[in-house]
Amino acid sequence: MPMHIQQIRDFPLFSGFEPVWEPLLPQLSVKRFAKDETIAHHGAMAGAVWLVLAGWVSLVRNTPDGRESIVGLCGAGELFGEAALFEHATYPYNALVVQADTELAIIPADVIRRAVAADPQLAHHIMQELNARVAHAQLKLEQMSTLSAPQRIGCFLLRFCPLHKGDACTVAIPIEKHLVASYLGMKPETLSRGFQQLTAIGVRVRGAEIEVGSIVKLREYVCGSCGESGLCATEEELRDTVSQPRP
Amino acid sequence: MPMHIQQIRDFPLFSGFEPVWEPLLPQLSVKRFAKDETIAHHGAMAGAVWLVLAGWVSLVRNTPDGRESIVGLCGAGELFGEAALFEHATYPYNALVVQADTELAIIPADVIRRAVAADPQLAHHIMQELNARVAHAQLKLEQMSTLSAPQRIGCFLLRFCPLHKGDACTVAIPIEKHLVASYLGMKPETLSRGFQQLTAIGVRVRGAEIEVGSIVKLREYVCGSCGESGLCATEEELRDTVSQPRP
Repeated sequence: MPMHIQQIRDFPLFSGFEPVWEPLLPQLSVKRFAKDETIAHHGAMAGAVWLVLAGWVSLVRNTPDGRESIVGLCGAGELFGEAALFEHATYPYNALVVQADTELAIIPADVIRRAVAADPQLAHHIMQELNARVAHAQLKLEQMSTLSAPQRIGCFLLRFCPLHKGDACTVAIPIEKHLVASYLGMKPETLSRGFQQLTAIGVRVRGAEIEVGSIVKLREYVCGSCGESGLCATEEELRDTVSQPRP
Repeated sequence: MPMHIQQIRDFPLFSGFEPVWEPLLPQLSVKRFAKDETIAHHGAMAGAVWLVLAGWVSLVRNTPDGRESIVGLCGAGELFGEAALFEHATYPYNALVVQADTELAIIPADVIRRAVAADPQLAHHIMQELNARVAHAQLKLEQMSTLSAPQRIGCFLLRFCPLHKGDACTVAIPIEKHLVASYLGMKPETLSRGFQQLTAIGVRVRGAEIEVGSIVKLREYVCGSCGESGLCATEEELRDTVSQPRP
């Protein structure tokens, strides 16, 4: 059996749903991409759903007057290109590889559409996934007004904290700082200022890496102002791994 | 036949999908709500999907430290409470009636779940609707960084412009100004300043109403900076009704 099939089974998105996805797995193809390759074009007919196996992909949109915004950042185990589920639908963004040797599984549009039409359980699982995406995007919108810039940066950092290695950690952010700023909807200078403010709770930028002195402290600082506190995916994982009382 | 059934058939969400929704319609109940009634509670088990027949409902979230943000504003023909599609799911917001005599159709969770499990076409249509919501939330996120505050206010106004009555119009916003500010993720003073800036293109606040001197001008001002220009629902409707060349 190809190695990627076992890898896919282990992703949280699929684990527990093996019977639903199993028939699709042999129909996937796997491809490796170089940094800066554009793998899907905004406005082009959506020909496939993509699953990140390794590396990072950013979802980027351009405005008519030349601005750029990152509407998504997908790491291992995450899907993009769901537009391919629907006939005549186009990709609503460019998908751009932002890390070298990014590996993607490709699910052709006709394969996923046929499977969804034939299996209500698969349809149900995809609905759940889409609903989670709506919730995630709404949460990000909420955070634009309820969290300060340093808190939003902190929330972003928590996503990258390795959660099984104690309270302190060093985080490698897969994309450049100006892209982080765009993803967080802030100016690069606001990002720099935000990182400076985070030094007070033990966060330090060391070149391309970021030292987090205490995940617990960072969490208290961020999540106490977030409507999703204790319910978001990052928080769920933290609860299971950082053995500290919740604030 | 109850009057609301014909009304529901006419909503863009359902028209063209009558065979898919028809079996559900007799199982809906309709209720009228007073302003300020909370009809769904954040964190409560999601017992129904709701469809607005008339009036307005805001979807509100509160943070642990007491801030409030509006993550959605639903008018006639729009659904909320999709969490009810999934077992054990809770509402991710409070749903609050913001206009007197708001009329809602209630689709009980067990009814919609049974129907979705039995009909792949219904599942497909709901997937499409959820996908459109993801796109809409991502667009709003993008606009937070690519549009100025007055442009975001203009985009919001365009949603309320009656599109079949020429280029000038008067708009009645269903919610109070501080809620508009919260919905747009800006401070009330930013909203006031934004409205002042919009006077230059013929937008004037007259108490609870807003005069839009030229929808075409407002569109040029807003949509030229938006990555969705020419593709969003508001724009689609405008294209069909305002007979002006596109910029």
